[in-house]
Amino acid sequence: MSEVYATRRSRLRERCNAAGTAAALISRPANVRYLAGAAPQGAVLLLGGEQDQLVCPVPPEDRPADGRPDESLVLHILSTPGRDPAVAAADLAGSQGSEALAVEEHHLTVARYRALDAVAPKVRLAGLGTAVEQLRLIKDEEEISCLRIGAEIADQALGELLESILVGRTERHLALELERRLVDHGAEGPAFPTSVATGPNSGRAGHRPTDRRVEEGDFLSVCLGAAYRGYRCEIGRTFVIGTSPADWQVELYDLVFAAQRAGREALAPGAACRDVDRAARQVLDSAGHGAALQAATGHGVGLEIDEDPQLAPAAMGKLDACVPVTVEPGVHLPGRGGVRIDDTLVVRPEADGGPELLTITTKELLAL
Amino acid sequence: MSEVYATRRSRLRERCNAAGTAAALISRPANVRYLAGAAPQGAVLLLGGEQDQLVCPVPPEDRPADGRPDESLVLHILSTPGRDPAVAAADLAGSQGSEALAVEEHHLTVARYRALDAVAPKVRLAGLGTAVEQLRLIKDEEEISCLRIGAEIADQALGELLESILVGRTERHLALELERRLVDHGAEGPAFPTSVATGPNSGRAGHRPTDRRVEEGDFLSVCLGAAYRGYRCEIGRTFVIGTSPADWQVELYDLVFAAQRAGREALAPGAACRDVDRAARQVLDSAGHGAALQAATGHGVGLEIDEDPQLAPAAMGKLDACVPVTVEPGVHLPGRGGVRIDDTLVVRPEADGGPELLTITTKELLAL
Repeated sequence: MSEVYATRRSRLRERCNAAGTAAALISRPANVRYLAGAAPQGAVLLLGGEQDQLVCPVPPEDRPADGRPDESLVLHILSTPGRDPAVAAADLAGSQGSEALAVEEHHLTVARYRALDAVAPKVRLAGLGTAVEQLRLIKDEEEISCLRIGAEIADQALGELLESILVGRTERHLALELERRLVDHGAEGPAFPTSVATGPNSGRAGHRPTDRRVEEGDFLSVCLGAAYRGYRCEIGRTFVIGTSPADWQVELYDLVFAAQRAGREALAPGAACRDVDRAARQVLDSAGHGAALQAATGHGVGLEIDEDPQLAPAAMGKLDACVPVTVEPGVHLPGRGGVRIDDTLVVRPEADGGPELLTITTKELLAL
Repeated sequence: MSEVYATRRSRLRERCNAAGTAAALISRPANVRYLAGAAPQGAVLLLGGEQDQLVCPVPPEDRPADGRPDESLVLHILSTPGRDPAVAAADLAGSQGSEALAVEEHHLTVARYRALDAVAPKVRLAGLGTAVEQLRLIKDEEEISCLRIGAEIADQALGELLESILVGRTERHLALELERRLVDHGAEGPAFPTSVATGPNSGRAGHRPTDRRVEEGDFLSVCLGAAYRGYRCEIGRTFVIGTSPADWQVELYDLVFAAQRAGREALAPGAACRDVDRAARQVLDSAGHGAALQAATGHGVGLEIDEDPQLAPAAMGKLDACVPVTVEPGVHLPGRGGVRIDDTLVVRPEADGGPELLTITTKELLAL
């Protein structure tokens, strides 16, 4: 495994060298983990100099779920408790004669940046931009297999919940039960706070569970995901409670399902991100639900639950093969509720069978 | 309640005016909540101009647990999905003729700061420093009563766990069960990820639960807290599993207990933060456990689980009445385990009975 991380770091170093900066400081935790194999609490990665160094505030815990720091890295444990590892790393870079240091300006606060500047006045701070995030876009098969296992775990947890009695239970309790089941099936934990929305709350993006109880006739929308070896995926489904859904429920469900299918079918290497968004969005638009303020109908997943690319009207760029994304249009009617359907898929060329669906729970409208 | 928030904002505005900046942009979520009564996802607060404005990316959900935005605020919902509310607020400040805008440089990233600067080139950006955090230090009785209820909830959840069978269960499952019980008793959720540590993991600060199972003879250390109306508190206890603890366990427990009591007893209005830390730390030091790299033996709590003041060797400043803090020394012996004892207390003058203990679960060494 060590080679994977060393290769990633040398790709980043090539970019830095091309930009005229021999040293780089990586502070964003997901980026540290991507390049170092682990991101102990507060750790930063210093590239350049004789050997790459992982600067940690305290010795890292040895937990398989956290990954292990790549052994080709020098582990540098701070001797001053409470010191900012980024400041210590800039200090190191200065003392090793670095003239310029590329930093993650989209992650460092203005205050930390000033502290870096003050501790190493001879080192010119440059912008690394989102170079590491760009490397993270296209996943290798090892990464995709972590996402696939995470999706299986989420499918299992959701499947079990559907077999239990739901009426009378609160959103909050259903969310906790789903999270327990994720862990039962081998997740490190939820990939993000589990969303359970009933009745008038259903269909809301990112709804946080309340004490409202499931009632007969409700829509129930659920969004959950598992974290597995650091990788995070997402599944969202909407169900109806009771023996038979109302006409408006069937109509709304069919509409969102059609939008979600259109988005899924638009996924292909070379497709523009905004076109995938439009494919899903225009189905809702043409039915008069366009005013719903959903900024994006999907996004990349990986070491973070929301990463590039964004599937949104103003998104630039095109999809590549081996990029995992969500497709998750939804409609929420204030006071009544709504529908969200959310899958994680990996973009694949048509010759390989087209997009690979990771979250396989049925998307038929189930009456529970 | 509205007056509380308006009063807090006018105190902040006085500070800004004294520093020569009429407008301020608050972006740190806990600070937004403190001043606005609610912090909808992504929202920022713009002070100054004719009326204070809460700038939100989407209309806030109406959830009692999130609080409600103070009605004397103008609610400004962005019409462009995906736009950074901080950038929109800087734009507003510019169009309203503000010459200077104080921002939270310890929260804004360098990239966001540049975007603010670019959108409002005529507005000079100044530093607000940690002005809002300083206002948050001393709590009013309403805030303390939220912390008190949160502590009661955590005590209840912990008490119930102790009555159940522990041997054979994993750290991860015990943590999930505690979190479920917190919610059962009325918490919005855990105040922070619940820590359950067994055997060789016990006594580690911030240990994240693993699949290790509780065994006879283990130390079991648990740290949890409830979030109640946004306020977060903390309790930590260490138990021994089996009929009778080993001698080294009793000895270590007594030592950490003595350190924790010394810290608690040092809490008083006017006491230097570093002296409280030293009171606890020197008990461990003199027993040869000083090398343990614990940066602080306690910290403030409130809308965030770790806020000022820090009880640490290099901490500046003194305690005031009505400041809630944790006192949480611990010792971890690599390979063997250890002990942590953690309480949340409110600093009170001796005339009022001295420090008020919020977390009342016994600190006797229980054998479970």
